[in-house]
Amino acid sequence: MVKEIDTKQNILDTAAALFYMQSYTAVGVATICKDAGASKGSFFHFFNSKQDLAIAVLDQFSGQLGASLVADSIASSLPPLERLDRFISMLYEAQKTYVEETGHLPGCPFGNVAVEQATQDEVIRKKIEECLAGLAQPLRNVVSDAIKNGDMPVVDVEATADAMLSYIEGIQLLAKARNDAEIIRKLGPAIKSIAIPVEN
Amino acid sequence: MVKEIDTKQNILDTAAALFYMQSYTAVGVATICKDAGASKGSFFHFFNSKQDLAIAVLDQFSGQLGASLVADSIASSLPPLERLDRFISMLYEAQKTYVEETGHLPGCPFGNVAVEQATQDEVIRKKIEECLAGLAQPLRNVVSDAIKNGDMPVVDVEATADAMLSYIEGIQLLAKARNDAEIIRKLGPAIKSIAIPVEN
Repeated sequence: MVKEIDTKQNILDTAAALFYMQSYTAVGVATICKDAGASKGSFFHFFNSKQDLAIAVLDQFSGQLGASLVADSIASSLPPLERLDRFISMLYEAQKTYVEETGHLPGCPFGNVAVEQATQDEVIRKKIEECLAGLAQPLRNVVSDAIKNGDMPVVDVEATADAMLSYIEGIQLLAKARNDAEIIRKLGPAIKSIAIPVEN
Repeated sequence: MVKEIDTKQNILDTAAALFYMQSYTAVGVATICKDAGASKGSFFHFFNSKQDLAIAVLDQFSGQLGASLVADSIASSLPPLERLDRFISMLYEAQKTYVEETGHLPGCPFGNVAVEQATQDEVIRKKIEECLAGLAQPLRNVVSDAIKNGDMPVVDVEATADAMLSYIEGIQLLAKARNDAEIIRKLGPAIKSIAIPVEN
């Protein structure tokens, strides 16, 4: 039983790293099995399909980021605008470390799969929507709290949180396109200036 | 000779549409040839590799967008902030039309390939950087002109243009993840509030 859990977790971790540093389509089940030291039989004992594995990988990323980056920044008890600064700072450090260790800036694990799969796989697209909601919700709290504190004018909370999430995705995309983490450090703080007024 | 040009252009247009609505990795040379009604021999007469074709596809997108969307909005002679509004409005209409016609929102042809290929193919990543520069330059002019007109405070022109470009990519990414063009219409206008101050 312990071995079963280890094998499943090993396949998950291997796939997560391969999908993240390459892409979902570029990495096949054969490669995942080879790198994880697992047989195909073992793979299909744990996962019905590569899509099934992708959903598990996205859930795992969501849980890990929720318990680390998100918990320590946008979902923390810091003053609201400091939560945003801390998020940008942690994101920058994490992406910079990837560049130092691998030569490449991988960007957002949800944004990556969204861009690659949203027009092709509706099950994966819906899962990403759910994962992104896990970032949008703490951002809504940031915006609400900032309005209460007088740190932001009264705005459309949901739309402003979505705009901030878009900006977070966008600076990672540009940083990935230029393979330069400095983009995140330099552009990131402007997230605090993004505001969508309440529609009349 | 005319037929040669037609065949090459047909392969290019077919690949552009397939890469854009699916992904670069998902679409192989065999599929492109089949859909274009061209032989593999003909394909490799015009293109050395799939990567070579990808570069040609990106150049074509860049030329087409430069002569249409970009020319009519951010590179137009409208007042600077109106250029941004017009860009967002045209982008929204274009992406909404894709959703109506295909059921899917494809997003940015450069952002898509950047996210998918930047960690894997340095030649393609560098080409995307060049294509994105074709968007960043007119945005710099928008920011410079807006500062001159007094429509924006004095900011870091290059960084602010990059931040606007990031936001354009980010709202398309979120719209693609949610398969909802309304995201672009609703969040887009906040591009005008993005400003990166000059560093001391």
